[in-house]
Amino acid sequence: MSAHISKIYQYIDENFDDHLEKIREFLRQPSISADGTGIRETANMVKEFIENLGGVARIVPTDGWPIVYGELISDERKPTLLFYSMYDTMPADEPGWIVPPFSAEIVNMDPFGPTLVARGALNTKGPLRAFFNALESILAVEKELPVNIIFVIEGEEELGSPNIPKFVKNYANKLKRANAMYFHIPAKDRDGRIRMHLGVKGIVYLELYVRGGDWGGPTEHGIHSSNAAWVDSPVWMLIHALSSMKSPDGKILIDGFYDDIRDPLPEELMLIRNAVKTFKEDTIKEQLKVRRFINDLRGEALIKQYIYSPTLNIDGIIAGYTGPGTKTVLPHEALAKIDIRLVPNMDPDDVVEKLKKHLIKHGFNMVNVRVRDKYPWAYTSLNEPVVKAMIDTYREHGYEPEIWPWLGGSAPFYAFNRDPLNLPFVFGGLGHAGNAHAPNEYFVVEDIKENEKGVVTFLYKFASIMEG
Amino acid sequence: MSAHISKIYQYIDENFDDHLEKIREFLRQPSISADGTGIRETANMVKEFIENLGGVARIVPTDGWPIVYGELISDERKPTLLFYSMYDTMPADEPGWIVPPFSAEIVNMDPFGPTLVARGALNTKGPLRAFFNALESILAVEKELPVNIIFVIEGEEELGSPNIPKFVKNYANKLKRANAMYFHIPAKDRDGRIRMHLGVKGIVYLELYVRGGDWGGPTEHGIHSSNAAWVDSPVWMLIHALSSMKSPDGKILIDGFYDDIRDPLPEELMLIRNAVKTFKEDTIKEQLKVRRFINDLRGEALIKQYIYSPTLNIDGIIAGYTGPGTKTVLPHEALAKIDIRLVPNMDPDDVVEKLKKHLIKHGFNMVNVRVRDKYPWAYTSLNEPVVKAMIDTYREHGYEPEIWPWLGGSAPFYAFNRDPLNLPFVFGGLGHAGNAHAPNEYFVVEDIKENEKGVVTFLYKFASIMEG
Repeated sequence: MSAHISKIYQYIDENFDDHLEKIREFLRQPSISADGTGIRETANMVKEFIENLGGVARIVPTDGWPIVYGELISDERKPTLLFYSMYDTMPADEPGWIVPPFSAEIVNMDPFGPTLVARGALNTKGPLRAFFNALESILAVEKELPVNIIFVIEGEEELGSPNIPKFVKNYANKLKRANAMYFHIPAKDRDGRIRMHLGVKGIVYLELYVRGGDWGGPTEHGIHSSNAAWVDSPVWMLIHALSSMKSPDGKILIDGFYDDIRDPLPEELMLIRNAVKTFKEDTIKEQLKVRRFINDLRGEALIKQYIYSPTLNIDGIIAGYTGPGTKTVLPHEALAKIDIRLVPNMDPDDVVEKLKKHLIKHGFNMVNVRVRDKYPWAYTSLNEPVVKAMIDTYREHGYEPEIWPWLGGSAPFYAFNRDPLNLPFVFGGLGHAGNAHAPNEYFVVEDIKENEKGVVTFLYKFASIMEG
Repeated sequence: MSAHISKIYQYIDENFDDHLEKIREFLRQPSISADGTGIRETANMVKEFIENLGGVARIVPTDGWPIVYGELISDERKPTLLFYSMYDTMPADEPGWIVPPFSAEIVNMDPFGPTLVARGALNTKGPLRAFFNALESILAVEKELPVNIIFVIEGEEELGSPNIPKFVKNYANKLKRANAMYFHIPAKDRDGRIRMHLGVKGIVYLELYVRGGDWGGPTEHGIHSSNAAWVDSPVWMLIHALSSMKSPDGKILIDGFYDDIRDPLPEELMLIRNAVKTFKEDTIKEQLKVRRFINDLRGEALIKQYIYSPTLNIDGIIAGYTGPGTKTVLPHEALAKIDIRLVPNMDPDDVVEKLKKHLIKHGFNMVNVRVRDKYPWAYTSLNEPVVKAMIDTYREHGYEPEIWPWLGGSAPFYAFNRDPLNLPFVFGGLGHAGNAHAPNEYFVVEDIKENEKGVVTFLYKFASIMEG
């Protein structure tokens, strides 16, 4: 097998200029699920990617943006991988981009050298197209893939994947043919180390909104701030409601918030003990442009803080006048956007109920809660074949992965990992990319090549393990 | 005298179409001090207003926007009024305007009938041009004014009048000729009652700003919100800092904040007892579009709350992502804009110091305080001739004013009321206007006519009282 693989690697090397161009072309097409920009055009591109490899694909309508479903099935007896991915991205309205976010320019980024900078370079259109480049390379050399692939590529991941569960239910008979789910994303850090996570946190995204009404405050528009002497303030109420939910030292004060967190499993504790040996706090600090972690934590305590802490994060807050000068106004409304990350065994619906109860208990009846999305965590054991295949892939390419029980972020893997599919899953890949959800999102050019080769390795490893 | 005055009133009636056009033309010229839009053009217009009446005027440069200084002095033996006003306005970026804010359109506004709607209609370009219309009418009928007038018309009132104190110092010899200061602004409420205030609160306007740094938090840009598990949040710090300064029931928690508030004077208590007899809470509620005052206060308690409460108001707050959808980000910076209103004898510098000490005492060293402007309160006694002249004016036009010790709002009258000028002052005028610092700022057309006539009455009353 290894002889064939080296030919495929060679094909990737020889065709890399073309592969890189295909990635850039894909990134130049915006696909912002928040406002719908370019969504339909991008879904069509993805459908064509599958068809161009000889697969069948269709664009499946949902109540939101469509899902691209596809199949590349050459032999029913081969193992089958469910390739779950996303063609949507975050908006790109943050200041600080060194090149336009949809120009997909290659800049010389210290210390990486030539680097592709674009919204979606990392999360996830860059890796998605790199995956197709890898498939194309296998087919060019070998005529067929070592596994069957079922594609589920959605356009609402950044909106919380609201339509994935219904899709999975409707397509369950087709999806059940898969042996495992794979989400492809580069996992190498800026120092060349690979971190692997077996699971993801769940999430609740909600808005807290206060407006003047029967309880007090201006009801129709901001009023002269001299009235603050005798009129209540919606923005102060929002701030008091927020601060009632979290202490300055970070403890979440909602009754029962931490109740359902389960104790670490022995497997998790073993993984954390191993991870501490190679974990470098400074690399993460440099990546995030952060000078200090919460409470100056280090080592095992820091890893446990990241893994086992549910969060109550303020994504944004706005009220009143925020421009230049000194406009005095008592605003009539105030809005905060919040995300809550859930660890096993917290339940999204339960957390929303506890938050609502908290607001009422503390007298903040005027605070409206609008749940924008929510889904649970997912976790797979180290012993699953698909996980082993990924670990073997990393090792084959010279990396000993640092394995963490789960990631601080969220992804809707629960939709495949729980009923009705109950699929084991893995997410990861080779190469270094950075700045997801931030300006100057990037994928190092040389690492794109490594990433494509890693896909080849992984698919053959998975086939080999599954076939015993 | 009354025979002449009725001729002047008649002149105003006959020329009112022209007067109204002059006001509309003035309002169509934007003059936003926050960003400088139209400031110089408007200063030139005001200079011409004075010159067209036969006065002398000059545009006095300052470190900010210029002050228009002018004199209309016909006879040194006459009493002299210092006419302080402003040619700048707030921005007009609030949503909800029913006509463009600089179109100065006349709309039929229930229950008032024809009403002029524009930024500055009330505060203060509408009354300013109405004042000039009144002077023009007196001069047309009588050839000279009953008083000398010294004009000080600034372009930075909405920025906190930062350059007025220096101007007053430089021009003290000229300004000392005045017997009193007058600020012209319509004072009739929507139910046809006049409220009069003898003084104004002081103000501190400041920004609280938090950014990631050595203390923690992202330092350069927002980062993926999954990092909230191990990275501090600037926006949470700002919210905790804010909530530490005020309790949910409205008490300001800064040490010593209330210490310097003096006891009410006997004159003030007498005024409040009188005011309660005519005060209508519902009128103010309707004007402000507010359904409930703080703690459901009514009558004397409500008036005292308004007059004697210093405030700590949030004019605006912003951090992170506030657009549509569910972008997850841990923001790297957060900003709040705050105004604090000061009652006698609170001192602006002292309050800033106490606020800074509070932040440090409670561990919020990462909160930066940027003072944008500050000035003290001002108060004049009921017994001053200029105050008597205004009360007599109201009564002459059929209104018994409800007199309050001071206003909840702020104006830089201290600059004339304290050293070196020590002038008594009054502010007010006839007619109804509304929505200062809010969308659809307006001045009822028929009330503009009443307002101009009131200026005539007031100038003759003041001359008569001063001449004994």
